[in-house]
Amino acid sequence: MIVVMKVGSPEVEITRISEELTTWGLTPEKIVGKHKVVIGLVGDTASLDPLQLQEISPWIEQVLRVEQPFKRVSREFRHGEASEVAVETPNGTVYFGQHHPVVVVAGPCSVENEAMIVETAQRVQAAGATFLRGGAYKPRTSPYAFQGHGESALELLAAARQASGLGIITEVMDAADLDKIAEIADVIQVGARNMQNFSLLKKVGAQPKPVLLKRGMSATIEEWLMAAEYILAAGNPNVILCERGIRTFDRQYARNTLDLAVIPVLRSLTHLPIMIDPSHGTGKAEYVPAMSLAAVAAGTDSLMIEVHPNPAKALSDGPQSLTPERFDRLMQELSVIGKAVSRWQPAIALSH
Amino acid sequence: MIVVMKVGSPEVEITRISEELTTWGLTPEKIVGKHKVVIGLVGDTASLDPLQLQEISPWIEQVLRVEQPFKRVSREFRHGEASEVAVETPNGTVYFGQHHPVVVVAGPCSVENEAMIVETAQRVQAAGATFLRGGAYKPRTSPYAFQGHGESALELLAAARQASGLGIITEVMDAADLDKIAEIADVIQVGARNMQNFSLLKKVGAQPKPVLLKRGMSATIEEWLMAAEYILAAGNPNVILCERGIRTFDRQYARNTLDLAVIPVLRSLTHLPIMIDPSHGTGKAEYVPAMSLAAVAAGTDSLMIEVHPNPAKALSDGPQSLTPERFDRLMQELSVIGKAVSRWQPAIALSH
Amino acid sequence: MIVVMKVGSPEVEITRISEELTTWGLTPEKIVGKHKVVIGLVGDTASLDPLQLQEISPWIEQVLRVEQPFKRVSREFRHGEASEVAVETPNGTVYFGQHHPVVVVAGPCSVENEAMIVETAQRVQAAGATFLRGGAYKPRTSPYAFQGHGESALELLAAARQASGLGIITEVMDAADLDKIAEIADVIQVGARNMQNFSLLKKVGAQPKPVLLKRGMSATIEEWLMAAEYILAAGNPNVILCERGIRTFDRQYARNTLDLAVIPVLRSLTHLPIMIDPSHGTGKAEYVPAMSLAAVAAGTDSLMIEVHPNPAKALSDGPQSLTPERFDRLMQELSVIGKAVSRWQPAIALSH
Amino acid sequence: MIVVMKVGSPEVEITRISEELTTWGLTPEKIVGKHKVVIGLVGDTASLDPLQLQEISPWIEQVLRVEQPFKRVSREFRHGEASEVAVETPNGTVYFGQHHPVVVVAGPCSVENEAMIVETAQRVQAAGATFLRGGAYKPRTSPYAFQGHGESALELLAAARQASGLGIITEVMDAADLDKIAEIADVIQVGARNMQNFSLLKKVGAQPKPVLLKRGMSATIEEWLMAAEYILAAGNPNVILCERGIRTFDRQYARNTLDLAVIPVLRSLTHLPIMIDPSHGTGKAEYVPAMSLAAVAAGTDSLMIEVHPNPAKALSDGPQSLTPERFDRLMQELSVIGKAVSRWQPAIALSH
Repeated sequence: MIVVMKVGSPEVEITRISEELTTWGLTPEKIVGKHKVVIGLVGDTASLDPLQLQEISPWIEQVLRVEQPFKRVSREFRHGEASEVAVETPNGTVYFGQHHPVVVVAGPCSVENEAMIVETAQRVQAAGATFLRGGAYKPRTSPYAFQGHGESALELLAAARQASGLGIITEVMDAADLDKIAEIADVIQVGARNMQNFSLLKKVGAQPKPVLLKRGMSATIEEWLMAAEYILAAGNPNVILCERGIRTFDRQYARNTLDLAVIPVLRSLTHLPIMIDPSHGTGKAEYVPAMSLAAVAAGTDSLMIEVHPNPAKALSDGPQSLTPERFDRLMQELSVIGKAVSRWQPAIALSH
Repeated sequence: MIVVMKVGSPEVEITRISEELTTWGLTPEKIVGKHKVVIGLVGDTASLDPLQLQEISPWIEQVLRVEQPFKRVSREFRHGEASEVAVETPNGTVYFGQHHPVVVVAGPCSVENEAMIVETAQRVQAAGATFLRGGAYKPRTSPYAFQGHGESALELLAAARQASGLGIITEVMDAADLDKIAEIADVIQVGARNMQNFSLLKKVGAQPKPVLLKRGMSATIEEWLMAAEYILAAGNPNVILCERGIRTFDRQYARNTLDLAVIPVLRSLTHLPIMIDPSHGTGKAEYVPAMSLAAVAAGTDSLMIEVHPNPAKALSDGPQSLTPERFDRLMQELSVIGKAVSRWQPAIALSH
Repeated sequence: MIVVMKVGSPEVEITRISEELTTWGLTPEKIVGKHKVVIGLVGDTASLDPLQLQEISPWIEQVLRVEQPFKRVSREFRHGEASEVAVETPNGTVYFGQHHPVVVVAGPCSVENEAMIVETAQRVQAAGATFLRGGAYKPRTSPYAFQGHGESALELLAAARQASGLGIITEVMDAADLDKIAEIADVIQVGARNMQNFSLLKKVGAQPKPVLLKRGMSATIEEWLMAAEYILAAGNPNVILCERGIRTFDRQYARNTLDLAVIPVLRSLTHLPIMIDPSHGTGKAEYVPAMSLAAVAAGTDSLMIEVHPNPAKALSDGPQSLTPERFDRLMQELSVIGKAVSRWQPAIALSH
Repeated sequence: MIVVMKVGSPEVEITRISEELTTWGLTPEKIVGKHKVVIGLVGDTASLDPLQLQEISPWIEQVLRVEQPFKRVSREFRHGEASEVAVETPNGTVYFGQHHPVVVVAGPCSVENEAMIVETAQRVQAAGATFLRGGAYKPRTSPYAFQGHGESALELLAAARQASGLGIITEVMDAADLDKIAEIADVIQVGARNMQNFSLLKKVGAQPKPVLLKRGMSATIEEWLMAAEYILAAGNPNVILCERGIRTFDRQYARNTLDLAVIPVLRSLTHLPIMIDPSHGTGKAEYVPAMSLAAVAAGTDSLMIEVHPNPAKALSDGPQSLTPERFDRLMQELSVIGKAVSRWQPAIALSH
């Protein structure tokens, strides 16, 4: 349920209403929109009468029910306004959201050694990326495959962060590693295979770093939003939703089916920012550029693209990684589409 | 198998080689590319030795096997060159293909009456479409649902063609109707449900009108190309491949999953032109614009978009149809992306 | 809508009611159940008031709406009673239905030559099958693959029918062949790829031979029942529903996913008999016995099993065909389960 | 790679060979089969020459490569022999495996209170079940749904264990709860959503209690076996594989598609025991009996069936739970099929 306040409502009245609603057993959350303040309410609202609520204060314009099963993540909960996720990086604050330029996250599947991760960071930064991705802990189908360099890789990410000024996104697989990862990472990734690892969701929701939530391989959009709801319900409002391809009957040419229609669908359902990962989404480097361009044209807020200095020798996901040269070219192509939809920012404007 | 001729090969030599290969029991097909002539060979080539073939003439540069199960539709069969489908319409020849501007096909799901189809045709033509879609025979899940006006609707399409100058695309469901449809239609559509109706494929392959082949709801890309191969094998080289959404586990918000990755995938596998249908692909009008823009950015050769003068009263597929006003706006948006990728043609240039 | 008549309703009254309802623009269909007569009504019943209908005659017990989108095929349309499909074969009448023993259909994917088809027929008949399957016209993914021997194969099926006394089931792919096929076949099969070839459905519905309707590869159960509804709506009540595996994300070991839960699901939704095809359903001979046993335990009314005298040399579907010896053994195993669920008939009882 | 020893190989020789192979950097595992001893080898065997290995001892009969990506779980690793999982319960040792009677696990989705769990345990025990299932920690799509009673529910399970003599199976969702759960549970369940939670797999692999590994909603069979391989690789050989329905395009009537073909497929690929869960597999109580019977006919080693004293009032999964009365009847029906396939044991034979 949400309480929409009239324009110009006094701060003290908003506080008073929130306190009163707390005594009703509800959890009020104040959301400051462009024009109005909205008080989001979570709790047992099923039995409440909106009209009765409205009588609490003459400053209340409207009381509306959130009809979706997901509450805090729903667009209605913010009365239709998009939210943004602001992340401090050495090079300045980067904003993920509908009213900001497209953010590009790039980097290798896994952190292999210091030279490669620092070089990659510098290359993708020069091309216009503002975040570095790179796995320290890798979810691998086989127990005998390379599992990531773990804790030592975190240090290499820190070095790359310092050398390039990029923000860092890396995956948590085990809640026991969360503190270590949160020390280094600017955004913490929950991978597709853990999208419904509810224990982990509660724990990333209870810490302050923004969370990148990848869609599960066969998760419906509703299930994905409910997973995000776990994080918001635990106290962390900074969630970015990342589509990375779903599993369908045809995996012969593309490894997954990149579901780009989530862009308009999520836009209408949620206020959270959207990311598209065409590298996992297709599984093949040669399909990544076309899908990246499509994602920007369709209105994505950010892209995650795998780049490796030498894809043929990558310890994981080589076939879907771009070379730095191909990535440079792609960024040029993206800037053309990005400008056409007024979502591109000259690299230089990213100030400290 | 293909025989690549050297640049400047004399016509008489190419003819001689083709004739000789015919005596070997093969069916040679001469393909004139930008720089070279290629002779495509279909038949029992498994036992042939490329080196032995090469000795037939000093003008032969190379003899290559087509490794794919699909032969005539494979990109290799044309030695990497795209083909184009040229269609004569009252307003001039329209070309579908990788090296041509994006072709927009628009119109209602089904032809309801003369006024609506003529009005829609004129509206979409004014906005920049060059083809009108409209169903005379409609595949409907229920035998009790509106099945299309059939033969009488064909006459209305003819009237709309004359009034607007647009080319006509309409679906054949029964081979017995093929002649009647071919009299009116400029392109004959085989629907998703008939993609593996092999009898029908053979019959549309044996007539001269270009064919729009929609992907089956759960057809793999390979099966789709094999279905196109049926048409080419029957003698008709003019096939356009149309993605219209596949069936996956999530149908709650979008009715199908529009598989835009087919654009780069098909581009690498086949020389045939590509069409995207975001209306069936998503099932909801509000998602159509974003997916149309994405398709153009990803490199589609054409779009098929449902437009209805009054979607709320449409006899079929209302929820996924744009109003003419929304279509006008979409064409403006598309022209921005289309120009950014150098695939847009000013409406005015389309003249005789 | 259905009109349930009281026990003992006079025939003349039932006729009178039917005639009156015809004047209302409805199509009444008299269904004689075990205890009661039901008049099924198709037409525009949405606006009718059941209570008003009930007043037509004091012999009417109840008037009920069919809530499902499928009407004639719904279990409600027969007031909960199963229907049966009776087929005359040289060896006697065979009944498909819930209250009859399991019917076993066996034979090769395609008819290859007279010796093989006659031998196979005699072998499977000796083992207890009462129907022979065998393709004259074969739907093949590739235009270059063996397409079946066509018309000449129909004659071989006739010979096998005579030699073995088995009923014949064979597939129609093209409505133009329907007459020829109906001359030979006792049951006409519509294949998975044509499940939504609505033109063909209408045509098999307009001829008198029973129809075996295979489920489409990605058809929902509702779509499948709606396809059957096309056949019943066209006048043919004798339809058998055959599950042959659906398409899912995993095709590595089994080619399709055999959806055995359709057995209880269909049982509750429709009165039509059910067949399971574990050969196409798994694509591998070694999985066929376990799935056949499971199907009988779950309550299937019939089984379709591919048997080939020499699977390794089969022109199509060899890997999923049982040898006659393995089939003999399977029939023994099936008889144990079949007897345990009281659905097995000693081969000998099947007489004239 | 496996080393097959000759019949009658002296123990001391087997030990010697194992020790020698350890010095080669391999991890030998001695498997005592019915007739022969096999030494399974894990490690970097790619570069080893089987013939060279064979020369280590004249008692070696054969050295074979395991061709599958999964090693320890593969049937080849045990040279074709099934393994068994033996679990001590208050009522005696229960064996899961191909050469044992079908084990029935029954109980409610979640533990609600002491009376209901004890009553359910006694009821299902009386009907012939030997294990009680019941969730203390529940994975729920919504953060606002009942999440299970947690630790206090574990105590109730202990009480039910004592009252009924049944073994206990309950799910772990968070590695932090593993010790507490292992104190009470006889078998620890890893749920479908955590099938690729590799951190959790490693941890349940490093503790001694047997593990029930449910198949992920869209996990391929190979991925499922690789997940089991994680557990075996971590040291725990006692894994039971449980199919609980996969996600497909049709969820209208059954919530999932129960993939019963995994029974013959797993049988050929792995030595591990197989369980089928028709309750989650269909999501509807009325379909559970048919699917249970089918599973036993197809050769499952065990069944997991949801039973609740009052399904209509269940806190979770009510619609798919059987009443105790329906479960009693199902056990009667199962015993008929179970005896027909020689996999049923009179309840009485289960001694202490």
